[in-house]
Amino acid sequence: MATKTASKTAVKAAAAKKSASKSGKAPVANTPAVKAPAPKQWVYLFNDTKSVSKVAPTWNDVRNLLGGKGAGLWDMTSAGLPVPFGFTITTEVCDEFVSAGNQITSAIWDQALSAMKVVEKQSGKQFGGGKKGIRPLLVSVRSGARESMPGMMETVLNVGLNDATVEEMATITKNARFAYDSYRRLLMMFGATVLDIDDEKFDAPMEHMKEHKGVKHDTELTTDDLKELVATFKQVIKKETGRDFPQDVHDQLKECAMAVFRSATGHKAKTYAKQMGWKTTLPTAVNVVMMVFGNMGENSGTGVAFTRDPSTGNKVMLGEYLLNAQGEDVVAGIRTPKPITEMEKEMPKTYKQFMSITSKLEKHYHNMQDVEFTIEEGTLYMLQTRNGKRTARAAIKIAVDQATEKLITKDEAIKRVTPTDVDFLLHPQFDGEEVKKAKKEGRLLATGVNASPGAAVGMLAFDADLAEKWGKGEGKAVILIRPETKPDDVHGMVAAKGILTARGGATSHAAVVARQFGIPAVCGADMMKIDLTARTVTSNGHVIKEGEWVSLDGAKGESYIGHLPTVAPRYEDQEDLVTLLGWADEISARKTRTLNDKPFRGLQVWANADYPKDAERARAFGAIGIGLCRTEHMFFEEVRLPIVQRMILAKEPDAVEAALAELLPFQRADFEGLFRAMSGLPVIIRLIDPPLHEFLPSGDDLLKDVTNAYAKRKYEGISEDEEKELKGKEVMLAAVQQMHEQNPMMGLRGIRLGIMIPGLIKMQVRAIFEAACNVKLEGLDPHAEVMIPLTGHINELKHVQPELEKVAKEVMKEKGVTVKYKFGSMIEIPRAAVTAFEIASLAEFFSFGTNDLTQMTYGYSRDDAERGFLLKYVEDGILPTNPFQTLDQTGVGELMKMAVSEGRRQRPTLEVGICGEHGGDPDSVDFCYRIGNNYVSCSPFRVPIARLAAAHAALKHGIAKK
Amino acid sequence: MATKTASKTAVKAAAAKKSASKSGKAPVANTPAVKAPAPKQWVYLFNDTKSVSKVAPTWNDVRNLLGGKGAGLWDMTSAGLPVPFGFTITTEVCDEFVSAGNQITSAIWDQALSAMKVVEKQSGKQFGGGKKGIRPLLVSVRSGARESMPGMMETVLNVGLNDATVEEMATITKNARFAYDSYRRLLMMFGATVLDIDDEKFDAPMEHMKEHKGVKHDTELTTDDLKELVATFKQVIKKETGRDFPQDVHDQLKECAMAVFRSATGHKAKTYAKQMGWKTTLPTAVNVVMMVFGNMGENSGTGVAFTRDPSTGNKVMLGEYLLNAQGEDVVAGIRTPKPITEMEKEMPKTYKQFMSITSKLEKHYHNMQDVEFTIEEGTLYMLQTRNGKRTARAAIKIAVDQATEKLITKDEAIKRVTPTDVDFLLHPQFDGEEVKKAKKEGRLLATGVNASPGAAVGMLAFDADLAEKWGKGEGKAVILIRPETKPDDVHGMVAAKGILTARGGATSHAAVVARQFGIPAVCGADMMKIDLTARTVTSNGHVIKEGEWVSLDGAKGESYIGHLPTVAPRYEDQEDLVTLLGWADEISARKTRTLNDKPFRGLQVWANADYPKDAERARAFGAIGIGLCRTEHMFFEEVRLPIVQRMILAKEPDAVEAALAELLPFQRADFEGLFRAMSGLPVIIRLIDPPLHEFLPSGDDLLKDVTNAYAKRKYEGISEDEEKELKGKEVMLAAVQQMHEQNPMMGLRGIRLGIMIPGLIKMQVRAIFEAACNVKLEGLDPHAEVMIPLTGHINELKHVQPELEKVAKEVMKEKGVTVKYKFGSMIEIPRAAVTAFEIASLAEFFSFGTNDLTQMTYGYSRDDAERGFLLKYVEDGILPTNPFQTLDQTGVGELMKMAVSEGRRQRPTLEVGICGEHGGDPDSVDFCYRIGNNYVSCSPFRVPIARLAAAHAALKHGIAKK
Repeated sequence: MATKTASKTAVKAAAAKKSASKSGKAPVANTPAVKAPAPKQWVYLFNDTKSVSKVAPTWNDVRNLLGGKGAGLWDMTSAGLPVPFGFTITTEVCDEFVSAGNQITSAIWDQALSAMKVVEKQSGKQFGGGKKGIRPLLVSVRSGARESMPGMMETVLNVGLNDATVEEMATITKNARFAYDSYRRLLMMFGATVLDIDDEKFDAPMEHMKEHKGVKHDTELTTDDLKELVATFKQVIKKETGRDFPQDVHDQLKECAMAVFRSATGHKAKTYAKQMGWKTTLPTAVNVVMMVFGNMGENSGTGVAFTRDPSTGNKVMLGEYLLNAQGEDVVAGIRTPKPITEMEKEMPKTYKQFMSITSKLEKHYHNMQDVEFTIEEGTLYMLQTRNGKRTARAAIKIAVDQATEKLITKDEAIKRVTPTDVDFLLHPQFDGEEVKKAKKEGRLLATGVNASPGAAVGMLAFDADLAEKWGKGEGKAVILIRPETKPDDVHGMVAAKGILTARGGATSHAAVVARQFGIPAVCGADMMKIDLTARTVTSNGHVIKEGEWVSLDGAKGESYIGHLPTVAPRYEDQEDLVTLLGWADEISARKTRTLNDKPFRGLQVWANADYPKDAERARAFGAIGIGLCRTEHMFFEEVRLPIVQRMILAKEPDAVEAALAELLPFQRADFEGLFRAMSGLPVIIRLIDPPLHEFLPSGDDLLKDVTNAYAKRKYEGISEDEEKELKGKEVMLAAVQQMHEQNPMMGLRGIRLGIMIPGLIKMQVRAIFEAACNVKLEGLDPHAEVMIPLTGHINELKHVQPELEKVAKEVMKEKGVTVKYKFGSMIEIPRAAVTAFEIASLAEFFSFGTNDLTQMTYGYSRDDAERGFLLKYVEDGILPTNPFQTLDQTGVGELMKMAVSEGRRQRPTLEVGICGEHGGDPDSVDFCYRIGNNYVSCSPFRVPIARLAAAHAALKHGIAKK
Repeated sequence: MATKTASKTAVKAAAAKKSASKSGKAPVANTPAVKAPAPKQWVYLFNDTKSVSKVAPTWNDVRNLLGGKGAGLWDMTSAGLPVPFGFTITTEVCDEFVSAGNQITSAIWDQALSAMKVVEKQSGKQFGGGKKGIRPLLVSVRSGARESMPGMMETVLNVGLNDATVEEMATITKNARFAYDSYRRLLMMFGATVLDIDDEKFDAPMEHMKEHKGVKHDTELTTDDLKELVATFKQVIKKETGRDFPQDVHDQLKECAMAVFRSATGHKAKTYAKQMGWKTTLPTAVNVVMMVFGNMGENSGTGVAFTRDPSTGNKVMLGEYLLNAQGEDVVAGIRTPKPITEMEKEMPKTYKQFMSITSKLEKHYHNMQDVEFTIEEGTLYMLQTRNGKRTARAAIKIAVDQATEKLITKDEAIKRVTPTDVDFLLHPQFDGEEVKKAKKEGRLLATGVNASPGAAVGMLAFDADLAEKWGKGEGKAVILIRPETKPDDVHGMVAAKGILTARGGATSHAAVVARQFGIPAVCGADMMKIDLTARTVTSNGHVIKEGEWVSLDGAKGESYIGHLPTVAPRYEDQEDLVTLLGWADEISARKTRTLNDKPFRGLQVWANADYPKDAERARAFGAIGIGLCRTEHMFFEEVRLPIVQRMILAKEPDAVEAALAELLPFQRADFEGLFRAMSGLPVIIRLIDPPLHEFLPSGDDLLKDVTNAYAKRKYEGISEDEEKELKGKEVMLAAVQQMHEQNPMMGLRGIRLGIMIPGLIKMQVRAIFEAACNVKLEGLDPHAEVMIPLTGHINELKHVQPELEKVAKEVMKEKGVTVKYKFGSMIEIPRAAVTAFEIASLAEFFSFGTNDLTQMTYGYSRDDAERGFLLKYVEDGILPTNPFQTLDQTGVGELMKMAVSEGRRQRPTLEVGICGEHGGDPDSVDFCYRIGNNYVSCSPFRVPIARLAAAHAALKHGIAKK
């Protein structure tokens, strides 16, 4: 490696000379007064650190100049790593090449030849051979564009072999087979790549030879076979092109370089660029790299390694190698490679060097590396290094370890981990191989919307009651399958391991509940025909009966027949994740932005939780507030639903009041639990939101029952009991029909309901404050925030809020204690966003209900769109993404931005958050940071993801202006 | 009237004197170097034109200073009219009065006394009497606040009578009865108003006296009776207050003035102010006016008159008078007044004076006047004049006539007429008396939303088929009554005289169709129980059967039992209206505003029309474009619906194409008719908008039918035909259920449908362009504008519009002719408004669909809201108005404003209009003008109203900046 730094400036000197001679003037040396412009440098040696740094100050510049591969080789060489010698003809030449009519100008080529001279010096070898006792210098010629363009890369290996050097090589290496095998490869590649001869013309004689010799693999061919093939290949070239294979190695080199440049504007490249949506093809560089061989004997070898375990992230070198072998031998699998640790015994010195190099590599790249190396007669060459691919688990462990080792900063560790990594770690997963197998065996049942991630396995149950009976009662693993779910299915949903529906999308009832409870779900799998009478599902050619086993991948939106094995991790056990997200929270707690010209901390992560146990889980996951407690979920519980129905059907105010009085203690108890679990932290409780008919049975079912009963009465007569039952159903049907709305999502819901039945929300507010006072009296610290849903006009708040605040004050007076509280509004009606300045005159906080806001802003019914046109829209690229999954920043986001800025103009201290399904989506979290939200609130299971995303946002955008 | 101008400055002089004497200094006269500040003037004579004009330069200032009544008296006097003499103590005194502890300070009172001296001089009479042979001066004391406050006005008449002057009066007038009747009135009013004695204390002895004398009317009491009453009333005052009625006339005057000032802050005034939402009560002025008497003999009299006929607007004086009578005699109806024309014979000189005065009055007020006058012994006094109330018809005629007479400008004429006037003129109306009678007799059937104005009478028909059969087939007058209407009811709706529904509001299907066709409708009359089986409606205690007569007032939202008579006008016959709206169009054609710094004309009025005959009607009504042709309405016609259903149910693309090919000629023929009717004017045709299930039967009905058929099959067996019918219904039910959407308004509609079934809109565009080309080839000039509905994302246009433009070009090439055309988009999804900059990159015009935009921006389902919470919201003032009737400028309007400005930023020539139901609402038209719309489009019947409203907007806001 002593020669490595030699003659770095030779190329430049050559360039200067040529330039001077072309312009007809002698270079003016040492005359600073009239300094000649430096001639353009077209060629850079791998070790030409300074010149490159000068013209290309940033890594991006280097990449643009030298192409991806050239930049990598240059960078490794600069870092002092043992890289085969070589040089790069820059991407700029590619344009020159085209301008010159697909020719490399002599000014450029002279620089390449000078560089080759340096490489000869560096390696001590001669290109074209003839140096006694020393192997001729062979090189590979490789393309390398600014962006990786897989499949259009042109490469020719073993350039430098000809009829003479092949013999030198055979003699010196004492391995004629190796020499001729290399030669026939050069002929094949040169013929195909440079001379554009159909591969088939070379493959046919080779196949013919193998057949003739009765062998199966190329490796079984003898030296003589290969010599014969070399002769044949030379004839093919002559026959196909009318010319001989060039014996002049410099001609070989130039033709290869030209072939690479040609390929940059060739048909393949154009097609690729078009596919990528680029306006033009990308220019490529040409890399000329000294060939090294690991099959030069027992002091040679080749291998691959990861600097840390890519599966677990543990800090152990993991790799394998083979002595006296080439890379392809490892791949071919004829010989079994040894674990890298054995190298320590076999080649202790090289092993030590390798370990030192990989340690250096980690330091240079600040990351775990995936390396390829070759040992040629005792000399170690690093052929490639790159950041190693790793599992989610390893990504997190490596980030945490490297930060602990001070190899990277904590900020860097946070940046290194993706939300997908965190997501992956927290949901049970199937073994990928098992999934492949199942698909191969035709056991794919159905695909749908990936509504709630995670893997689940269970027996199909076709209704919620059965799911509860099996799941809760008998402890069986159940998958609940339904055409779609409704609020009264919830008891069966929470008892199931997974949920599978034929209708509804990512924000359907099934999906929302599933994510809320961390239950894997596939929704809207509309290829399924569910027969609720026969208790069968027909899909993808299968008919599956109730009780049969099904596996369900909620992250992929797929379900399979049978029982696939799963792995289920626990957050608290994920030490590294817990550490990492602790750092994330530290970042989010920094005052990284400004609000009203004052420093303002990053985004907090809160959770949506309806029950105390959800709140506890949310807190365990790191949530520091409850952003949404949906009070109506409490109404669906078995004991309570009849009371709620009684209230709805009541004709007299007294009966309504009586039912509400019965509900009060239930709600109060729920709220007490929430406040206890979240003592010291804010709890936002939303007043009743859904339309009342959701608490009543389905109108279609009632209509069918009633019609059937009429028919029975007509034809057969019915009993007294049946008559009584019919009467009840008639009353219920009349109520359901009277309450029926064409578009219930835009109907009597939220605050509208509160205004029509003021007693209902007053009861809820009373329950909230009684609970908060009771918990305060226990010595805890409840923070109650009462949220009014579906506000569209400030007058709605004016009508309701003072009355509710009065109730709050009354209760605190009764209890003789005061608690911290706020009153605020959901922002989910576009009009509320547009008139935010007015709304904030009463609302002390805003919480964006982005599900509804998206629904109304787009005019897409959440219940319908995802099983209808919306899927096609996303498929056809009419929409970039499903706006119910990733926030539509251009439309919905613009309204949010307006609302935040107008709201804070009215009330500078306005607390702003988001509690829609987007709260756990990383892109949406980033957006919420940018528009100035105080927090995002999401389902407990997505809290870790949101914590990471919030820190990412702070690192990306967070530069406090003051 | 010679004395009228005398001593105008006496009051000021008195004020100066008093002020000077108070300050202890002599007034410094004629020493301009050290001029003393003018003492404040608290009292103004009616003829003190100059002083008032100086301190109150505008009419509003005068009104503020003198109060409404005072200002009127001052103004008439200034105009040289014979008004009784008098003066006003200003409203400013009212505040002084309160500050001084409910006292009139002597500085102020001295000014009043001085003014009274002037009035004595002007009238030649003495206040308190004693001037030989001349009647004592009597005055009335009247309140008059800045705003009219009906019911809280305090008035005392005949002030100046006492035991002495009553005798003088009796002697001089030779009418003792008159004198004592006047005196007892003064005593009653003074007692009640000034001394706060209960009316009852005076009424009781009076009733007692009448009973005792056996008479019915006050007028039948004799002089002696009245003398006795005067004595009794004086005793009442003494008994109730412990003091005597003041005999000093100046004391009477002062006490009356104080009573008026007290009343301004009294209980009644406070209650009234609270009702009106004023923060404080309003101050009042006190007007002291000389009493004049029309019952002084045959050369006296009294009367009222309108300067033009307030009913027809004809230019004839219309009024009546009575000689030797007081105003109350006219009212009491004991004597029959004579028409004013007879005065010419009876009092030719006075008549001439009266005609000259009223002509002067019209010129002064530039308007038709409603006057009251009294002739006292040959002298004419104008007691009051005000702009006369008039019917809508008269309003329009008078405006046109007065502009033609150059009494007012055309602009003024336009301002004078309200949209309500125009509306009233164009819809059949009931006689108000008949309506009162019907209500009194308990014949009110039901009240609901005033969905489409006009009066209609007909026989109830309970379904559309019957309505068509009776209405179209048998030429009967029919009122169609339905729980709600659906598109397949349209044939029956258009055959009906009126529509009555139990469900749905101002933008329900029934309401929109009704307004579209100018059919009166009352919707959402939910007190009605409609029994479709029994064919009866039960409401308001009545049970009405099919075929019974009902009358329906669409403007009031009321319906009555029985046949009320109506009047039905025709636009073309309304000559004055046609003239007036011609002027309105001239105003709208002025370049009254700027767009991109260039002058830009006012708002055009276009119409929504689906059929050629609608377009013709719209053009007759003055529309200069079609802003919305709803192509889907054409699909509901009898012959076409089965083809549409076939297309919807088709499983194979070929079958879809075949059905579309069948529809093409129908659509083309419709469009040809439209283009012919609107040659030279733009016609915007909207591609299909509603969800497909609207073209299929009701799911509930199908479910009931199928369930019933199953039951019949089970219990009784069914025939082969029935089995076949069942099969068909099963297929239809399955399709309906499969297509069912939870919220169809936010579902598969508009462009979404166009993207899912591209053949459908391509067929429509082909039909549009084939029609346009054919009409062009006939020598006419079609302007086709193709409108894409429900756009929410620019990519939707990108996906569809180029394909449609291709079809357009293809057709024009086939036909060998080019036509003028544009492609544009509805703006009805909030997101389209928010991203208008993007949308305008493809859309050449925007048309606001404010029905849907309101629906989505508010999150109010149009189909449901108006029968639910929305009515309560409007009732309780949570919403100022129903946003489906009057555009919500703060919310929805803000989005529109944003869309116009962003759209024009992208495309400065963007054509912008509105085609929602608001297009015909005057306030909304005003808003559309302000945000820079090019046109509004409304139903043909509202075009005249919109034309007037557009001109109003131009006059109000239209000041071109450049």
